[in-house]
Amino acid sequence: MSGLPLRSAVTWDRSDPRAARRAIRSGGYTGYTAGIAPGYVQANICILPRAWTEDFLLYCQRNSKPCPLIARSDPGDPRLPTLAEDLDIRTDVPRYHIFRDGEFVEEVTDISRFWRDDLVTFALGCSFSFEEAMLEAGLRLKFLERNSVAGVYLTNIETVPAGPFCGPLLVTMRAFKPADAIRAIQITSRFPNVHGAPVHIGNPASIGVDLAKRYQNVGDGEVAEDELPVFWACGLTPQLAVKNAKPSFCITHAASSMLMTDLRNASLAVL
Amino acid sequence: MSGLPLRSAVTWDRSDPRAARRAIRSGGYTGYTAGIAPGYVQANICILPRAWTEDFLLYCQRNSKPCPLIARSDPGDPRLPTLAEDLDIRTDVPRYHIFRDGEFVEEVTDISRFWRDDLVTFALGCSFSFEEAMLEAGLRLKFLERNSVAGVYLTNIETVPAGPFCGPLLVTMRAFKPADAIRAIQITSRFPNVHGAPVHIGNPASIGVDLAKRYQNVGDGEVAEDELPVFWACGLTPQLAVKNAKPSFCITHAASSMLMTDLRNASLAVL
Repeated sequence: MSGLPLRSAVTWDRSDPRAARRAIRSGGYTGYTAGIAPGYVQANICILPRAWTEDFLLYCQRNSKPCPLIARSDPGDPRLPTLAEDLDIRTDVPRYHIFRDGEFVEEVTDISRFWRDDLVTFALGCSFSFEEAMLEAGLRLKFLERNSVAGVYLTNIETVPAGPFCGPLLVTMRAFKPADAIRAIQITSRFPNVHGAPVHIGNPASIGVDLAKRYQNVGDGEVAEDELPVFWACGLTPQLAVKNAKPSFCITHAASSMLMTDLRNASLAVL
Repeated sequence: MSGLPLRSAVTWDRSDPRAARRAIRSGGYTGYTAGIAPGYVQANICILPRAWTEDFLLYCQRNSKPCPLIARSDPGDPRLPTLAEDLDIRTDVPRYHIFRDGEFVEEVTDISRFWRDDLVTFALGCSFSFEEAMLEAGLRLKFLERNSVAGVYLTNIETVPAGPFCGPLLVTMRAFKPADAIRAIQITSRFPNVHGAPVHIGNPASIGVDLAKRYQNVGDGEVAEDELPVFWACGLTPQLAVKNAKPSFCITHAASSMLMTDLRNASLAVL
């Protein structure tokens, strides 16, 4: 509309996850990934040194609803070929967070200089995949209309520990009219690799949640009079478990800046 | 335990639907069918003269949740071979209700003397089938422990009419803790031929239900503090639609005295 130049001089096809990765890899895109390459899986990333990975893998296995593992790299190998042929985890995430001894150190857009032979990448599924399936089924996600994400809450449910990894379950809340809540349960049950069916419906207090108190103020917690709050296990749960474990070194994606993969969301549906 | 003779002199294998039908056919059993031949489908029965059957078939098609048709006979044919090879609808239901012009006339244990060449039998699925699947999954149905059935309620939801068949949707209510309610939705979604997924969860008032006011006082309406009421379409809905249509002649099964079939409940599961 205006005569101003585009903020980024490089244009790329936002419907193509390969094009998105190339733009991110070249430093041409460092923003949020919501809305990019619709239909394709976006993944949460956690990179740990070998000494910590067996326990973390066990933590994911024991808590598969909040920690749905969709790929794990070989030690020292920056590739994840089951997610995309060309993928290089050192360059293909828009922004990374670096942690030392459990403390956040800095945000970077490339981790090549941090890479080590003992680092292992974990890619975990994300609820964006089932939100797409809900929208395609005609369900309304009002927080998207407000340009927000689902509200995130700390519960009084403890995850099953594995070694030093432990902590409470975090959940996302989406509000629906009752018939749509039933439909949302059916739809998300088809996606066990991206958190699956809800863990709770109805009274927030029975899982220790106060809807007014969102975790780190993330997302939208509105529930209308004729709606029921429905709660799904949240991918921030393993991040909190990692924080509690205080590994000597750790790299994650920055919030909402995920790894784009070539897997189709629909390919994760089991039914 | 006592030295008294059994009330019925004829003993038969209560785990076998064929044995049950033989006992019923011979007049040796005229009671309720709950608990008989566990694992096998029991059906609601509605027998109508040919002049009314096209509209009733359409009513079932338009309202498949309350009216899940599992078999329809040929006109004048008392057999339903897809439900059981030996089945004769004139003798194989423990107790029948006879209606003329929509009014109840009498209860009988054999309808041979009422049989006509223009009568058509409709067999509709029943929620007993999915209740068994819920119990097998470890869900608790407290009304069964109290020797009752799920509470039945009239809603403010109108079914889709077909010819003279019309009326409100009736629902059954089962109360669950939230995680079990989610599981119950998953389980019953597999059984579209026996009412399928719930039609409502949570606030009864939003479908016009007052839990204290059961339809014809049928069943158990208790909901504990930590439970959610979950509502399924009920097989009494077509009975009410037939009552509203006032067909010249109609035969149904008596409440809780169903047709025993050789179909396994598990065979109705689509997933």
